[in-house]
Amino acid sequence: MKRPGEVVRHGGAYKEAGVDIDTQERALARVKELARKTATTGVLAGIGGFGGLFRPDLDGVADPVLVASADGVGTKLLVARMAGDFTTIGRDLVNHCVNDVLVQGARPLFFLDYVASGRLDAEVMVDLVAGVAEGCRDNGCALLGGETAEMPGLYAVGDWELVGFVVGLVERGAILGPDRVRPGDVLVGLPSAGLHTNGFSLARRILFDRLGLAADAPAPWAGGSRRTVADELLAPHLSYLKPLGPLLAHPGLHGLAHVTGGGLTDNVPRMLPPGTHAQVRLGTWEIPPIFGFLQEEGGVADEEMLRVFNMGLGLVAAVDPEALGEVLASLRASGQRGVVLGLVAKGGSGVVYDWRTDDGAP
Amino acid sequence: MKRPGEVVRHGGAYKEAGVDIDTQERALARVKELARKTATTGVLAGIGGFGGLFRPDLDGVADPVLVASADGVGTKLLVARMAGDFTTIGRDLVNHCVNDVLVQGARPLFFLDYVASGRLDAEVMVDLVAGVAEGCRDNGCALLGGETAEMPGLYAVGDWELVGFVVGLVERGAILGPDRVRPGDVLVGLPSAGLHTNGFSLARRILFDRLGLAADAPAPWAGGSRRTVADELLAPHLSYLKPLGPLLAHPGLHGLAHVTGGGLTDNVPRMLPPGTHAQVRLGTWEIPPIFGFLQEEGGVADEEMLRVFNMGLGLVAAVDPEALGEVLASLRASGQRGVVLGLVAKGGSGVVYDWRTDDGAP
Repeated sequence: MKRPGEVVRHGGAYKEAGVDIDTQERALARVKELARKTATTGVLAGIGGFGGLFRPDLDGVADPVLVASADGVGTKLLVARMAGDFTTIGRDLVNHCVNDVLVQGARPLFFLDYVASGRLDAEVMVDLVAGVAEGCRDNGCALLGGETAEMPGLYAVGDWELVGFVVGLVERGAILGPDRVRPGDVLVGLPSAGLHTNGFSLARRILFDRLGLAADAPAPWAGGSRRTVADELLAPHLSYLKPLGPLLAHPGLHGLAHVTGGGLTDNVPRMLPPGTHAQVRLGTWEIPPIFGFLQEEGGVADEEMLRVFNMGLGLVAAVDPEALGEVLASLRASGQRGVVLGLVAKGGSGVVYDWRTDDGAP
Repeated sequence: MKRPGEVVRHGGAYKEAGVDIDTQERALARVKELARKTATTGVLAGIGGFGGLFRPDLDGVADPVLVASADGVGTKLLVARMAGDFTTIGRDLVNHCVNDVLVQGARPLFFLDYVASGRLDAEVMVDLVAGVAEGCRDNGCALLGGETAEMPGLYAVGDWELVGFVVGLVERGAILGPDRVRPGDVLVGLPSAGLHTNGFSLARRILFDRLGLAADAPAPWAGGSRRTVADELLAPHLSYLKPLGPLLAHPGLHGLAHVTGGGLTDNVPRMLPPGTHAQVRLGTWEIPPIFGFLQEEGGVADEEMLRVFNMGLGLVAAVDPEALGEVLASLRASGQRGVVLGLVAKGGSGVVYDWRTDDGAP
């Protein structure tokens, strides 16, 4: 079933086969209203509805390049199900997607979602899409369309899948990444809000299977706060568009890496030119307590932790050292704290953490 | 895990939690090769890899509009699983998506896929993505990226989800649909290859649950041919880009409707302007035997059949009567047979089939 432009109805026999169209339609009306509120000036409304139409503003863009990314939120969905709270997972998805185009220098234009379940419970569906719409609004990105599928037999009743797709725009000359990053660039990390959307299979195994924690139990690592395990795990993935948007045109910003699956170890090198590596000094940033708890209870090695989890950093920037002061000040003005982690160095590849250096310095 | 630009690795502990990264990587290498073969001139390769980069050719396009659509293939996936054949379902997905942007006058630029399973069997994954890549090549559309997710706990081992996103481009003045379609336009149908990707929940219920047919049994409606139930059900969704591409610039082509969920009844009206309806005469086209078999064995009413299934027509065009001869000749030259089904008429809304007319004519 297409959203928001499209309404497809089926009657009794189809419903009998497990596809409840009436329920879908009621939810659809609410979902369409939510999507409408995300409309930006580029959205062409009221013209058919088989696909969403978007007219990009190309004024002043000499050589426009589209940047696209598809993402899911992984088994964070299963935590949402355990907690009976699907209100935040849509923001996770949008923010994750937005960061993936942002790190190449692009601003998001529009977003489409795909929601599927064994049975489309209207309330959950609206919670999911409301989160998506909220995320789109926060990022100034139109929710241009979506697909809703009821698939009895593939998904269990109560299980949901949520997939997102974003398209952004960047001037070709402003694409960030390996072509710009140089040895001597300073690596600046931006704090994450927790696990974001990675490492949930391992975290669930440690917290729920091994330790038998309940989703609504107080989080043992949260130091006597009232935050539950679910509160901590479901903290939404942050979008870095607002703090970094003002810096995208700054010549001193050379590269960005979104710290997702693969952690710092696999993601930071993706913005590096060949023949360089990243030197990252552990201890320069504060690793939130949840990661220490997972490591200890799961018996996970340091190297593994740095590959599975973001360890408290959602994004890393490569910055010209002469621009460092300005970049940090700009981040601070956006309410974001940048932490100097290390630098880009000649030779080799990948990330070298300080414990592995041979120079004897701790 | 990102594809094709991105390779994310995890180690032992993550693998222990159910995510087999080595298997993913082997499959990934093959998948990247398949994606590379779909590259068109717009693809910017080798620049980072968090999002896919595409430089649209805007030469001669005064007012470019992007058309985007998200789609799944529904429970056709479950038939693929029954038949143990995932080689064709990727083409279903691409062709479905391409048709959704085509009907608004757009040609596809690029495609992204999302593949998920409880366990990423490398062979199945490659079959799925090879089908996607083949579909992209056939449609001249770049496979710009994709996401692969292993989600133990959400999907059963052996179950797969496949979602696609397409972005196409159209000159604003060339958008097809309600703004162009007029009373008196002739409705021309293009044959489907079978169920395409709609009505599978009902078809599965009738064929497998009620009749207990095996996927590899001879299809009872196939008249003694050697075609099996699975052969018939898995016949790929057709793309109508090749037959219709040469006509997109023809002023006599006013509108197109992709016949998906909702059938002729719900999809044809989506290209009509307000205050008009479609008159469709049953009997003008040949309804393939599979639909008659499903109707009889399932005890499904005519109205219902026309809403759940495409009934042998994958796409309907609204054509200026003065251009009808040229349009039919152009279709014939592309090896496609267009069938005149009826016309657009003043007043009312929706589709009026001839059995419902009050004029007494059969």
